[in-house]
Amino acid sequence: MLEISQRGRAMPVSPFRKLAPYAEKAHQQGKIIYPLNIGQPDIETPPAALDAVRNADIRVLGYTHGAGTESYRRKLAAYYQRAGLPVVMEDIIVTTGGSEAILFAMLTCLNPGDEVIIQEPFYGTYTAFAIATGVRIVPVTARIEDNFALPPLADFERAITPRTKAILICNPSNPTGYVYSRAELESMLALCKAHHLYLISDEAYREFCYDAPYVSALELAGAEPNVVVVDTISKRYSACGARVGALVTLNKEVYMAAFRFAQMRVSPPGLGMLLAEAAADLPETYFDASKAEYQARRDLTVARLQAMPGVVCPRPGGAFYVLAHLPVDDTEKFGQWLLESFSYENQTLVLSPANGFYQTPGLGQQEVRIAYVINRTDLEAAMTCLAHALREYPGRVELQAPPIVEAAALPL
Amino acid sequence: MLEISQRGRAMPVSPFRKLAPYAEKAHQQGKIIYPLNIGQPDIETPPAALDAVRNADIRVLGYTHGAGTESYRRKLAAYYQRAGLPVVMEDIIVTTGGSEAILFAMLTCLNPGDEVIIQEPFYGTYTAFAIATGVRIVPVTARIEDNFALPPLADFERAITPRTKAILICNPSNPTGYVYSRAELESMLALCKAHHLYLISDEAYREFCYDAPYVSALELAGAEPNVVVVDTISKRYSACGARVGALVTLNKEVYMAAFRFAQMRVSPPGLGMLLAEAAADLPETYFDASKAEYQARRDLTVARLQAMPGVVCPRPGGAFYVLAHLPVDDTEKFGQWLLESFSYENQTLVLSPANGFYQTPGLGQQEVRIAYVINRTDLEAAMTCLAHALREYPGRVELQAPPIVEAAALPL
Repeated sequence: MLEISQRGRAMPVSPFRKLAPYAEKAHQQGKIIYPLNIGQPDIETPPAALDAVRNADIRVLGYTHGAGTESYRRKLAAYYQRAGLPVVMEDIIVTTGGSEAILFAMLTCLNPGDEVIIQEPFYGTYTAFAIATGVRIVPVTARIEDNFALPPLADFERAITPRTKAILICNPSNPTGYVYSRAELESMLALCKAHHLYLISDEAYREFCYDAPYVSALELAGAEPNVVVVDTISKRYSACGARVGALVTLNKEVYMAAFRFAQMRVSPPGLGMLLAEAAADLPETYFDASKAEYQARRDLTVARLQAMPGVVCPRPGGAFYVLAHLPVDDTEKFGQWLLESFSYENQTLVLSPANGFYQTPGLGQQEVRIAYVINRTDLEAAMTCLAHALREYPGRVELQAPPIVEAAALPL
Repeated sequence: MLEISQRGRAMPVSPFRKLAPYAEKAHQQGKIIYPLNIGQPDIETPPAALDAVRNADIRVLGYTHGAGTESYRRKLAAYYQRAGLPVVMEDIIVTTGGSEAILFAMLTCLNPGDEVIIQEPFYGTYTAFAIATGVRIVPVTARIEDNFALPPLADFERAITPRTKAILICNPSNPTGYVYSRAELESMLALCKAHHLYLISDEAYREFCYDAPYVSALELAGAEPNVVVVDTISKRYSACGARVGALVTLNKEVYMAAFRFAQMRVSPPGLGMLLAEAAADLPETYFDASKAEYQARRDLTVARLQAMPGVVCPRPGGAFYVLAHLPVDDTEKFGQWLLESFSYENQTLVLSPANGFYQTPGLGQQEVRIAYVINRTDLEAAMTCLAHALREYPGRVELQAPPIVEAAALPL
């Protein structure tokens, strides 16, 4: 019998796409749908970066160096240096999106059967990378009542086993928007050092911090052997489709192994690198407008959510997401109901049910991730829709304390 | 102790890059170097395809569908249909180069520890993908005295174990240029059916067949459940840097699993897809010029090599490579000597020592792959260089029969 592989069977459908068929139907019915489910920014891609592609003088679009073109790596290093990171060109492997950097980090730092500890809720797609690479994710749960801050280090220590090889953080966090403080990062790095673990830091949203300056894991004293940074231009320059990211590490052994994985696919996308190189040349003031816009949207979203009876919404410091507790029985059912059975002035919205961001079964059932990637007028309208929907939804339940996971119930 | 993974340690340095440091030095010494080592075509990328990128009206370069844009998949399906393949849009997953299609095929069709049989010599990078996915390659050796044709099916049958899940072929072959006949393909598919194996067919060079019409594995009767095609625009349109390929299969279960792996990295390169879409619109006559050029180069290269005493060079039917036996002790040493110690009228060349294309230790030591990806004037000059070098090389050995591998010595 021809059979697909176990890992092929185990691969999950993208959690972001579960409601897509219902959204499609609602769209066909002529409803206006506000897409708050996908982290696809609506901010325009910098025209200067697109122009660099348009004006490139290309006769043969050939392979480049496996770590990316020297000219782009040089400019990317300069970008990091401006941000205070001790990074040179030789520390950077340009990847096909942040995705490929995650893949290379897992392949390089962990063997099949090894464990990586990740604070949940986490970016659901990490699960797919773990399945593809045979790695086991061990979750440590952050709580909405703590604003999704770093859980106590004792929780991490309890989760460490002889197979643990790395802790992976996403900072600022997708899906919670939480931004780690320097003290939190330092304590995490100290923990990694004490247990000989890699600290893989996904910094895709590094430019979007609203309340305090951003601290990268690579800035920390002693980062050198432990830290592997995953980065991408997708969110920074609103250029998700370019598929250009980077793996950055000061650990030369990790670098060389990751580079051999990079050689396997010969080179990263050439046209995307042209765009990325021009974007890296943009003045630092470029981010002022997009940051101000996202910050205004965050303030609007949080204020509107907090004003809805029964909704619990921490105020996240970064990224463009909020993770909120809704007074409903099940946000997956609610999300489907919003598309199938609800409209307010012919409008409705798509949300990301948060169960896709938790590994521990049962968690996140009353939470949703909202991506504030639509303009403020639409965002206001979407929030008005949501307020009406929460009043009308037949599965509404009154506020209860969000579920508390007993330490003993943590899957070790 | 922080340690990189076993797979990270096992990953080989790209066999195409081994001589790079010596080439770099020779270049610094002012030598003219003919690069015959890398399969990077020099034919220009179709200007109409590049113009499509230049003229695209992009405000936000966003993610696309995980399987690629519908418009490109539709045109790619039409391209396959013109070539006689029963392929529709829904059978195609656009990938990041052919590389990613190989990765997805291995992840989907094989579990870690499973075996894939590959005729050697083979594209050395398959080894890297096998290590990354935990798959074991079992080689079946093709012989230069048979022009690298399909080895007897009995050799494949002997190599099949309970862990065998697939046979992978590259047609036309990189590195030998061999093109499988319809009868060979049919016998291979019948073998796969008898043993419930996938037939993964890497068809990167499908447009470059000089002596007979091309037969794709997907055209065969009964291809549907077994065949998984790996394709790319890299060679077809001289657009290696675009990083656009495809996985094509009529097996829906394989398709859906591969698609879930594709969702993991969200979408393929967007700018490259714009280029690929415009290229798919080119008239079939587009290939006439590039095919005629490559064919003339093949004829030139083969004629020149066959005229050199001690050289054995089959006449390949496709791709843009020849694999030749040279009268030298070791082609890796010879390749290094060419760059370090030799020049003819201040010129020399870089070759690919063929040991990187064999898995069986000791094979290929007297063979080289030559990629005829430079213009004919340079190719003539490079061949003249090679003829002089073979006369001067201190490690010259007179022709002996190429090594014969006893069947019993095959690593089963």
